[in-house]
Order: sequence, then structure tokens, then C-alpha cells
Amino acid sequence: MKRSIIALLMSIPFYGAAQVKSPDNLVQYAHPIVGTQKMGHTFPGATVPFGAVQLSPDTDTISYEQDGKYNPDVYKYCAGYQYEDKSIVGFSHTHFSGTGHSDLGDFLIMPTTGALQLNPGTADKPQSGYRSVYSHKTEVAEPAYYSVRLEDHNILAELTATNRVGFHQYTFPKSDQAHIILDLMAGIYNYPDKNVWTFVRVENDSLVTGYRQTNGWARTRTVYFALQFSKPFKQYGSRRYDKKQAYRGFWGRFDQTKNFPDLAGEQLRMYFDFKTTEGEKIKLKFALSPVSTDGALKNLRAEAPGWDFEQVKRQGQQLWQQELSRVAIQAAKREDKDNFYTALYHAFLSPTTYMDVDGQYRGLDQNTHKAEGFTNYTTFSLWDTYRALHPLFNLVQPKRNADMVQSMMAHFEQSAEHMLPVWSHYANENWCMIGYHSVPVIADAIVKGNTPFDANKALDACVTTARQQWYDGLGHYLQLGYVPEDKSGSSVSKTLEYAYDDWCIAQAAQKLGRQDIYQEFSKRASNWQNVYDARIGFMRPKMSDGTFRKEFDVLSTNNQGFIEGNAWNYSLYVPQDPGKLIQLMGGNQKFVPHLDSLFTMHLPDKFFAETEDITRDGIIGNYVHGNEPAHHAAYLYNWTDQPWKTQERVRMIIKRMYHPTPDGLGGNDDCGQMSAWYVFTALGFYPVAPGSDEYALGSPVVQGATLRLENGKTFTIQVKNQSDKNVYVKQATLNGKILTRPFLKHSDIVQGGELVFTMSARPVGKL
Amino acid sequence: MKRSIIALLMSIPFYGAAQVKSPDNLVQYAHPIVGTQKMGHTFPGATVPFGAVQLSPDTDTISYEQDGKYNPDVYKYCAGYQYEDKSIVGFSHTHFSGTGHSDLGDFLIMPTTGALQLNPGTADKPQSGYRSVYSHKTEVAEPAYYSVRLEDHNILAELTATNRVGFHQYTFPKSDQAHIILDLMAGIYNYPDKNVWTFVRVENDSLVTGYRQTNGWARTRTVYFALQFSKPFKQYGSRRYDKKQAYRGFWGRFDQTKNFPDLAGEQLRMYFDFKTTEGEKIKLKFALSPVSTDGALKNLRAEAPGWDFEQVKRQGQQLWQQELSRVAIQAAKREDKDNFYTALYHAFLSPTTYMDVDGQYRGLDQNTHKAEGFTNYTTFSLWDTYRALHPLFNLVQPKRNADMVQSMMAHFEQSAEHMLPVWSHYANENWCMIGYHSVPVIADAIVKGNTPFDANKALDACVTTARQQWYDGLGHYLQLGYVPEDKSGSSVSKTLEYAYDDWCIAQAAQKLGRQDIYQEFSKRASNWQNVYDARIGFMRPKMSDGTFRKEFDVLSTNNQGFIEGNAWNYSLYVPQDPGKLIQLMGGNQKFVPHLDSLFTMHLPDKFFAETEDITRDGIIGNYVHGNEPAHHAAYLYNWTDQPWKTQERVRMIIKRMYHPTPDGLGGNDDCGQMSAWYVFTALGFYPVAPGSDEYALGSPVVQGATLRLENGKTFTIQVKNQSDKNVYVKQATLNGKILTRPFLKHSDIVQGGELVFTMSARPVGKL
Repeated sequence: MKRSIIALLMSIPFYGAAQVKSPDNLVQYAHPIVGTQKMGHTFPGATVPFGAVQLSPDTDTISYEQDGKYNPDVYKYCAGYQYEDKSIVGFSHTHFSGTGHSDLGDFLIMPTTGALQLNPGTADKPQSGYRSVYSHKTEVAEPAYYSVRLEDHNILAELTATNRVGFHQYTFPKSDQAHIILDLMAGIYNYPDKNVWTFVRVENDSLVTGYRQTNGWARTRTVYFALQFSKPFKQYGSRRYDKKQAYRGFWGRFDQTKNFPDLAGEQLRMYFDFKTTEGEKIKLKFALSPVSTDGALKNLRAEAPGWDFEQVKRQGQQLWQQELSRVAIQAAKREDKDNFYTALYHAFLSPTTYMDVDGQYRGLDQNTHKAEGFTNYTTFSLWDTYRALHPLFNLVQPKRNADMVQSMMAHFEQSAEHMLPVWSHYANENWCMIGYHSVPVIADAIVKGNTPFDANKALDACVTTARQQWYDGLGHYLQLGYVPEDKSGSSVSKTLEYAYDDWCIAQAAQKLGRQDIYQEFSKRASNWQNVYDARIGFMRPKMSDGTFRKEFDVLSTNNQGFIEGNAWNYSLYVPQDPGKLIQLMGGNQKFVPHLDSLFTMHLPDKFFAETEDITRDGIIGNYVHGNEPAHHAAYLYNWTDQPWKTQERVRMIIKRMYHPTPDGLGGNDDCGQMSAWYVFTALGFYPVAPGSDEYALGSPVVQGATLRLENGKTFTIQVKNQSDKNVYVKQATLNGKILTRPFLKHSDIVQGGELVFTMSARPVGKL
Repeated sequence: MKRSIIALLMSIPFYGAAQVKSPDNLVQYAHPIVGTQKMGHTFPGATVPFGAVQLSPDTDTISYEQDGKYNPDVYKYCAGYQYEDKSIVGFSHTHFSGTGHSDLGDFLIMPTTGALQLNPGTADKPQSGYRSVYSHKTEVAEPAYYSVRLEDHNILAELTATNRVGFHQYTFPKSDQAHIILDLMAGIYNYPDKNVWTFVRVENDSLVTGYRQTNGWARTRTVYFALQFSKPFKQYGSRRYDKKQAYRGFWGRFDQTKNFPDLAGEQLRMYFDFKTTEGEKIKLKFALSPVSTDGALKNLRAEAPGWDFEQVKRQGQQLWQQELSRVAIQAAKREDKDNFYTALYHAFLSPTTYMDVDGQYRGLDQNTHKAEGFTNYTTFSLWDTYRALHPLFNLVQPKRNADMVQSMMAHFEQSAEHMLPVWSHYANENWCMIGYHSVPVIADAIVKGNTPFDANKALDACVTTARQQWYDGLGHYLQLGYVPEDKSGSSVSKTLEYAYDDWCIAQAAQKLGRQDIYQEFSKRASNWQNVYDARIGFMRPKMSDGTFRKEFDVLSTNNQGFIEGNAWNYSLYVPQDPGKLIQLMGGNQKFVPHLDSLFTMHLPDKFFAETEDITRDGIIGNYVHGNEPAHHAAYLYNWTDQPWKTQERVRMIIKRMYHPTPDGLGGNDDCGQMSAWYVFTALGFYPVAPGSDEYALGSPVVQGATLRLENGKTFTIQVKNQSDKNVYVKQATLNGKILTRPFLKHSDIVQGGELVFTMSARPVGKL
């Protein structure tokens, strides 16, 4: 696989002449295929940075629910594609990257030849439907480009995209029976009643418009499209698969199955017939809009006016080159560059653009709004991404991050609950996971001074959100100082995260001189102490009556007061005050071996089995890297007298958890959080507590790096004596001055400068 | 009933001071209750002329389909209300007037007291649900005002409306348990799966917004609302009745049944709780929008900024006074005035306004469009209304009629099928009935010079529509000169109506100097002759092979090549050329007795039973007035040597078919067509062939009339010697000049003037 990617990258014009002047062709190092095997849940298809369209192959579209029962296999298909699969069902236009729940998979297109088959067929009998077997040998997956040979139909499929337009190019054999199928029933995390309504118009012999409305993870989601063919179809038709047949009245007079331009219903598949010559290319431009088919047409015309597939691909890859080159690294090994730029690629996939070229987007209230002065984004997997992804954006994508904050504020304005987003996508709040981690994203931006928006208004939104008594145990938390387990499950996780979010609000308030808010939330921020059971040295679920819950297993994640983490991992979750946590846990002497144990202990199989969203590869000892709650844990040694252990651990984690291969991610990439962890860690520092302006130093993987900041400044990282074995930092200097603490300030970076690490094979550092 | 209406009308302020100056209080003669019994299918509730909101009581909301079977009773409830019913389910905001199919009934509101009941209950056990028994004694139904006492709840309900806002006023008893129920499942012509999606937000303690999307007669219909309460509710809640439960994910953490502001699903009912004092009035403003909840809020604020119920009612009735006074009549009897202004009231209900105050509306393509320079209308029951209603508008509502044409042209622009509307409502084509009778409406406007729009473009739309080979037998018609019965049912009706529409296009083309079109369609216009079977003297279904169908019964309407009419009625349908028809039928000598027979023959019961949409009252002999195809028939004597028979017949029809009582309409009012027939006929003339500029004279019912035209001119009608017995026109003069033919030109009227009839008890006229 990799060879073919590289070969192809090298062969295209962009990487010829242009390469001489540009620093390096970075696109060659980013591999969309990474994470498509096992639990990574990434997609291999074509998209531009933060693009609204993710045009990607789906290898199955199995139903979430079948015969009234949950089908656990559906989980594998969060991104539509599993590397092991032998057949491709088709190419759909929207995909999450790395999520553990899912949705989307809108508008599946499949080109076929031979007798028309309108059902997708099954994985074990691919010839029973329109799907096709394929081989990874013919597969090319690059940023903004994907291609594969559809063997059953003898068609070469190529995909690229602009922000809002998926661009397909299918090279057909000679055939009197060439078809393009548009399956409007297909979808990811599908189930029998997910499709609420579908509406299609065949506007003329080469233009189709419509929309699809679903009730899935997003409760009320509508995506509009405009589909333009490069060649008029000979004829077209459709089939309805609705279980229910509503009143049809006088429509019954018309044969709506053939060449009928006006279709609607719940379950619909369409086909468009062509006659092709050998090697004939049929191209499709498939534009999306959150607002209307008019909007989709506008997007189509603005972004993809022509039919030059290579040009669109070139433009897409130029965009990637531009974004990836915000961080230019030097590395000893190709693998390090592959890992780094693949991680940066995955970090720059979402949040995704959610507005038309004219700024119109659908709000939470389902009204059409206009984004004035910012790009509206959607797909906020905030429980994951507040940790490292948004801090990464504050550093290398500050403009986008500020726009994301503005998108969250728009969400707040539109929210019937008067809440900032929890997990939002496509004009919906899906409430996934716990807390309200818009707050650390906003606080981080405020504290770091990245506020080309009304910071006080943003703070007010945080405060309003944090006072919603009805929300998920928050009323109890305000009353008792913790979430009582008998009132609200996952109570410890909630308490810890509320307390951290409180601290974030306090920091932002302090920065903005809002003392009353600072006082109120600083007080709340220490609530984490209320669930610490000093007798056992772990955070522990507490009941309304103030007693700790009796039944309790520190290794289990099932019903123990935690979510996506056990007490071992979650008890370390006090990013706002590791010093105090270490003190409560008995000081350095007790804490360091305790933290060591996390990485070295043996987790019995029965506990592994219940750990969500990750493979065995995602766990080191009892440290779960495949989930987020302990992502900061390896950096906690920096608050002890043995920061060299952080350096050792993070290099070990990187070695174990990130590979430039399809199975190279040990858990869900979670919209880029896992990748952002890599990017920071590889550069040698990490934002343990977003909302502070401090980074904890670790051990860089790169040999050097240049951060080209949006303010025009440059921050360079030099790593002397770098090697696989030299994982310890002997000395670090900032602008020539020796660092005496293993921390770095955000302001140190954004004002430009140079950080020099000198590495060693032994922990001899004085940091 | 009537007494209470009149008493109330007389008691309100508007009819005091204002009456001295204004010509007459005409609102008092318009009785919305007329036609609510039996087959009239009118609604008694509150609406303004051509208003978007029809706020009216529903006495049942039974399902179209139950247990998979059609429920024939649903037909009774096309307008939601049946006079015989003993209980009211609630008050919903959208109603068709007089249709034979239906839809709508959106957003049913019901105020209750006592224990909360969220199910409507049944007609036989009204106390089993939230519905209430009521008595006609407490019922007042006036233009723009309806009131009734809800006996089960001891609540006085009063309704009025602006164009886009329903205004409710409920006078409660003292109660700790006062409720307002918002039933989002209720609907007219409902069935289990009609609701596609419902979305509601409780914005604050007195404002609710949302929408309802249905798949009914309109396939893809969404209505948005904003509901403002005059008093904050204490608490609120909801219940879901969805059969299917889609993936709910993290929503499951929240109790969405109580005080939860963010709801969506298929089947939803809500309640809002209040504590009331004795006689306390709770008012609701319920605004609709075709576009968005934002649009509904805009409409609410623009049209009903305050809380003065009486003022809104007064404004609504002033609008009615203004519209009704376009035709001021003198009549001998109160009943004649009641009939006349009730008919004019019904004629001015639809088409209804279909755009927000800022001109935004939803198009057929489901995009939001803006009406530039015209009011966009919907609810085009064109197979009915092209006959007399639109011609009436061309005379007394020319501005609105031109806007309706523009609305049709917008529909054409948006139509995936490139068709003018057939039967359209709420951004949908429902294809009801046959033909494409936008054409006569447009042709009538062009021929009569009422064209403040691009007449050539409108003609082009007619031509494009008339050339759609795929449409309902039209391809065969173009090929063979008739629709063959073996290819397309109701073939004779279609042939006759296509031929008439062809003639209309020819007339419009001639007026615009488009000779090629005139030639082409003049030729097509004589196609009616192809289905005339001279051997039997009737129109008769013809097969593809050119032979007439063998099995044929001239009295039956079932499967005989006709729809909503038998061969007796439909064979007279050549409005464009009665002279030629009479000639083919054997000239005056044969035709006159033939036509006489229509009115005098005995229709055996078995044929009556199969006549749709009308009661026994709607038939005179074999003449079916309750359906439209023979509406012009009584005027055909004008083309013979015995026009006095027209005069006699139309007076007889009026006497038999129109009464100012709940059961006063002998068939569906059909969006005002039945009423428009009355208005014309009562004035003494009728548009036999819309698309010509000629009216056929009949026998006026009025003693006199003044038409106040929009061009500032006045046309007066004087009737000398008028009486119940003096039904014959002895002489008619136009501006003093004796008429020698029983016809009148449209231009004669619109340039102003005076028409004087002199009546006689015997047919001694020389017309």
C-alpha cells in the first residue's frame, strides 16, 4: 500500500517543479489509510483540510439494529471502512474521523457495469449486489485523493474533493450497461428507521438535486445535495423500499420508477444509465449544503466550475501542503515523518466546515443563519478534543480555533437549553459523553489571548452553561460539591471534569478581570477533592449521604463511577492542580511508584474486555492510551522530582501506539485527539491543562521542527543528540537560556524563538 | 344559530358608529357555518380574506387509515368540522374550504381544566379525553371570529386571526389545574404514518417554536410555527407516541417529558399548565410560516404585536367588510343577502397567502424563495376553480388574480416536471383530478387584459405544460386526437378538458399575436369531436383502435370514461364551442329537449349512489350541481333559440342549492367554485368559457348591485320588476342600449356602466 502511495505522489506534476522551491513535499508523508484497520475508525477517502465533504469508500453499511436487536458489528463501521474487508459498497460523502459512535455516510455513489443491481449485496456474496471486490494492491489513499479498481465492474474509481464538493472520476470499460447508482438508503450507523425523509429532483439530463433527512446520532439532520454528471445519462430510474406506504392519491397515475424527475419518500435508490466506450471517464461533482439544494448548487458552481479532475486533486493537495507545512520537521527516519504528518493530517480533518460559500448554515433551531465574520464549523467531539487538539489549533491554527469558538458561541445562542456544545454535529447536540468541554476550549483561547471574538460574551456562555442545574448531575454537584453516584452515574468522572471546567472558567475570568466569576469558580474547581478517598488513595464514587460507595473495584470501568476509564486512570484526572493531587496521594515518594504501576502493572483480561473503544494495543499496563482520560498522565512526572520518567514514558507510548500502517492507531482517533497528542508529544511538549498558558515538556521525537505561526513569527525546535535511545532531556534552552523547570509558556512560543533540547541516553537532566 | 350570530354582530362596536358612514355592514350577512353540515366541507372558524391561517374547531380527527383499511368516515372531516357532532377536539390552524380530499389541520390547541388528559378521547365518550362537548346554542361563527363554550372544561373559547396569526382567547374558571394542550399528532385526513417529523423548542416561559412535517395529500409538507402565550406557564411537559424508537444515545440521560425545552420525533403531544382565577383570560398567538420558525416569529411580531383580542377581531372583520363591499347588492329578502355574502365570503377564502411578511416562501423545490412584486398564494383547486372563481377574481379581485397567476408561474419555474399547477398546496403538487387548468386561468387573465405580469412567459408556460407527453394520456391525445380509454382512464373527461384548455391557449396566443401557437392549439381545440358518438348523441370512450368502447352506460359515472360526472353531464362539456356541439347534437330542435331532460329526468338510485362528493340535494334530475363538469350547462340554452330556459333553470338551481343554513350547500364548496357560481348567477351573468371575454346572461337574483372595480370604475346592475316569480328577462339594456344577444362582454363591465334587467313572470324576452 504505502509504496503505491509514494510512487503515485512522486509521479504527479505538483511534486515535480514545485518541489524545488517549497520546503518539502509533506503530502507524501500523510497516509489516510492509517487507522483504517481495527479501532482507529479513520477513513481513507478524499477530503481537504477541515472540509465539509469526506468522500470515502464504505466497505459495509450494516444496520445498527436488526430484527430489533443491536448489532455490535456496526461499531466497526463508524468511518464506513474496515481494512480487512474484501468489497466496497460504494463511495459516500460524509464521514467522521475516528469516532466511537457515528452517523453520516450520506449519498452513496457506486458505478457498475452489467445487469442493473440495486441492492448492495452482502460481504460474503459481493456479486449478489452492486458492491464490488477490490484489492489493496490497486488502492491509493492520499490526502485529497483516493483511487481503487472495482474489480467486479472493471471500473477505475478515483475520488477527490473541494471543501464542499466531492469529485468522482470513473473510468469505464466499453459497456452498453454502465450505471451510476445513488443509494439514498445507505448510511453509517444505519438502522431501519433512521431515514426520515428523502427528496430528489432530476433537474435535467445531467443534474440531480435533493436532500436526506435522518434521525440518527443527530436527531434532526438534513443534508442537501446537487449532483452534476459530466455526461448526460441515457435514462434513469428509482426504486422505493419504504416499509410503510402513505397516501399516494393521484401520484398513482404516474410510473415513478422510470425517468420520473420528482421523487420523495423514506427509502429510495436511484440509478442513471450510460453507454460507455473503452476507457471512457464519467465524472460526477457532488456538492453538499447544510441549508438547501440552492446552497448546494451555489457551492458546486463556486468551488468546482470545471471538469478537470487532476486540477481539483492538485488544488486539494496544495491545500494540504499549505496546512501541513505550518509545522516543518526534521526526522531521522521516514517513519517519524510518516507518523508526524499522518497525525497532523488527522488533526486537520475536523471540526469540519459547516456553511455554504455564502456563509449560510443551519442552526440548532433548524433556521438558516449566516456566519458573519467567521467560518462556521461543526463536529465538535469536545470531550476528546479539548485536551490536545484545540490547544494545537491555538498554536498552529489560531484563526480556525477562534472561528470554532465563534461556532460554539453561535450554538450557544441557538441552544434551547442555553448550553455550549457538548458533542455537536450538523446542527444537532447529541450530548455524547460527559461535562461541557467547550469551556476549556474557550478558556484556553482566552488565556492564550487568541480572542478575535467577544471574550466576555464567551465567558458568560461558559458561566451560563456551568450553572445549568438540570444538566446531568450538575444540580447535585452545585449543592453537594460532587455528583452523587446514587443520583447520576459516572459520578466521579463528572465531578472531576466539572471541577476542571470550573477551574478553566476561573482562569478565563481572571484573565478578563471578572473577579466575582473567578472567585465563584475557583472555589468550585477544588470539588475534585470531595471524591478522593484518602483511605484507598483513589477517587471513588460518593453517595448523596456523603459516604463512599461500598462496592468498588479500582480496575473495573463498569458501573464504578467512571466512564471510559477506571479508577486507576481517572484518579489522576486533576490537570488543574497535579501538585495538590500528588500531595493528597502522599507526595513524590508515594505518587511516583503509583504512577509507575499504572504503566507496568498487569491488567487482567476480564477488565480489558470491558474497556471501550480500544484494542489491546491501546493499553500499556493499565494505562489506557486508546481512551482520553489519562492522556495527560505520562506528563504528571513533571510535577514530581522525576520528570525524566515523563520523557521515558512518552517515547515509549509513541513507539507502542503510533505506526504508519493501516492498524497504526491503538484506539479511536477521536476526531484528531489521539493524533494531536502525537503531534505535541513528538515536538517535545504537551498541554496538560488547557486553560493554562503552560506546556509540560516531554521528550521530542523529531530532530528539529519549525512552527510557522500565523502571526508571522517562527518558533524552531532543535534536538541535539537525538536518537531512539537518547530519550532523556539532558538540557533544554529557550532562546539560549537554560530552562530550570520542565515547562514552557505559550507566549514563549508565539513571540517566536528557539527551543533546543539536548538529549541523552541516561536521565541526567536537571530540569 | 343564525340568531345568535346576528345578535352578536349587532352588539359589537364596529357595527355601531362605523355603520353610519359605511354603505352597509356586510359582514353580518356572511355565515361561515353555512356548508358545515353534510357535504359542504366548509369550516366555521376564524380567518381573514385569503388568509394563511384558518383557525377553526375540529370535531373529529379520525384516521384516514385504521388497521390498514381505509376509513370512509374520514371524508366527512375534510374541513375538520361536522355540524352534527357533539364534541370539539380542539382548534387547529389550517383548513381547506370545501375540498373533497384533504390534508392540514395543523397544530391543534385545546384548553382544558381538571386532571390532565393528553388523549383526545372519542366522540361517543368525550369525557374519556381532552375533547369537550359543546352546544350550537353557545356557538358564534362570524367572519374572523368564532366562539364556543367548552362545556366539559367550563371554558369560553374565542378565536380570531390575522393573515398569518391565529389569535386564541380562553376564559377560564378558577382552577389550579388549567391546561393548554398542543397536539402535534392531530391532523386532518390523518393516518398512522402521516407525521414525518415534529420539532419543538420551548424558547422561554411563554414562547414555543417548532414545525411539523407531513406526508399526506401533500407529499412533503412542512409548516413552521411560533406560539406566544399571554401569561407564563407554570410548567410544561410532553409525551411521545412514536411507534418506532430510533437511536437515542445520550439523550436518554434527560427526562424529556417535563420542562424539557428541546423535543423532536414523529408523534408528540405537549401541555402547558397554568393556575387561573375565575374569568381569567389566557390568550395565545399562534403564527405560521412556510419557511422557518424565524419566519413565524417575524409574522407574529409584524401582524399581532399586542394582546388586544377585540382589536384583532375588529381588524379582521374590517378586512372582510372591505372585501365584501367590492360588490354591494340590493335584495328583497334577508336570505338573498345572506346567501350572496356567504357565497362571496366562501369565494374569498382561498387560494391562501403562502409567504411570510417579508415575501419569503417555500417553493416546490423545497428551497426558500422570495416573492418579488407579488403575493404568493397556495391551495389551487384548479379543476374546480378555473370555471367561475378565477373569472370572478378577474372581475372583482384582479390584483389578487394576477398575483395568483404569478404564483402559478413561480410553481412552473420550480416544477421538476415543467408543469403549471394541477392541484397544488403548500409547496406541493398533489396532481388531483385531470387536465391542467392553470391554463384557462392564465388565458382568462390574458384575454381579459389583466396581465401585470409577463404574459408571453405565462403563455409559454401553458404551451410547455400542454406538450408534456408523459402526462396522463396527453401523449396519446397528441398522437390520436383523443385519449384512448384502454390506455388511460377517464379518457373522455380528459379529452374534453384537454381540448378546452387547448382552445384557451389559442385564445391567449391570438391576443398576444402568437400566430403559430394560435394555429397549433386551435387545431387541437376541436379534438372533442373525436369522442362524440353521433349514433347515440353522447360523448363516449374511444379505444386506441378508433372504435368506441362497447360497454357503456350514459347514466353511470363508474369506469365509463368520465370522472365526477356521467355522459349526460360531461357530453355538454364543450364550453369553447357550444354552437358546434348543438349542431352536432342535432340543432336546437333536438338539443333543447335533450338539455331539458337533464334537469327533469329521474336518476335511478343506483346511479345516485355512485355520484361522488355530493348529497341528494346536489342533484336536480340528472343535473349534478354538486360537482363541477356541468356548472355551465344551464347557460347553454343561450346558444339556442330559447335563452329563457337558462333564466328559469338558474333561478331554480339557486333556489334548490343554496340556503343560509349549516346544510345549505348541496356539495363540496370546492375552494369557492360553488360559491362563485352563485355570485355570478345571482348577479345575472356567468363565464361559460373562461378564456373568452364573454359572459352569458342568466336571471339575476339581486334587486340591484354595484361592482366597485379596482380600476376605480363602477358597474351597476339594476333589476326592474324583480320577484321570485319574475325569473324571465323581458329586456336587458347596457348603458341604455338594448341587448339583442344574451351575452355581455368583460370590457363592457370593466369600463364601467349600467346593466338594467327588466324582469317578467313569463318568457317574453327578445334576447
